[in-house]
Amino acid sequence: MPTTIGNVALNVSDLERSERFYVDVLGLEVMARIETPDVREVLLGSSAGGSQLMLAFHTDGRPVEAGGGMWKVYVATDDSEGLFRTAVAAGAEPVEEPRHLEQFKVTIAFIRDPDGHLLELGQQHT
Amino acid sequence: MPTTIGNVALNVSDLERSERFYVDVLGLEVMARIETPDVREVLLGSSAGGSQLMLAFHTDGRPVEAGGGMWKVYVATDDSEGLFRTAVAAGAEPVEEPRHLEQFKVTIAFIRDPDGHLLELGQQHT
Repeated sequence: MPTTIGNVALNVSDLERSERFYVDVLGLEVMARIETPDVREVLLGSSAGGSQLMLAFHTDGRPVEAGGGMWKVYVATDDSEGLFRTAVAAGAEPVEEPRHLEQFKVTIAFIRDPDGHLLELGQQHT
Repeated sequence: MPTTIGNVALNVSDLERSERFYVDVLGLEVMARIETPDVREVLLGSSAGGSQLMLAFHTDGRPVEAGGGMWKVYVATDDSEGLFRTAVAAGAEPVEEPRHLEQFKVTIAFIRDPDGHLLELGQQHT
């Protein structure tokens, strides 16, 4: 079996809050839940495919400091502008308004999740 | 189209060094390369499936500070112990020796990539 990437896990400070944001607001799906004495995890993805993102809450109370190591999560959507407006209305911090990049035939917008993790909302134009 | 996760991008301080590590040592594949005046990116994954990880080098010289926001990248392999030994021999920092978790039927080991990003090398036992 070749090496593959299973998922990338981000630290979050409030697992329920983050799950509501990624699932109810952004539209991702919960693929699995894992609980151990040290950590509670929600695995996010989509039955339509794509990558998987793990939200991880550590019971040791470690601080969640977004930025520095992880740059951004690329979230693919068919309506970057609409998802940006929806997320901001739901309380997400707006970082960059939607703009069209002719060179890459995409519309992108940037927001921050409840912990400050940077998300790029990208819409590919075919 | 439902919302999906495209990839998660990690900041790296030396793109060529990181590419060698993830491709030559860990066995991942380069799926795409993107260059703009601001950032040079290598998209990693596997033609066998799984998630995608972006390595991103910013030309603005921003510091790469692993930890805090991103917890770990889960790398799936069919030989956790072998990949751990190979990676450490190639200079990766060992964090946790391979150990078997009967509860989850996996063997896991932890290392750090050249920038200090934490990687879990996981082998599922069926």
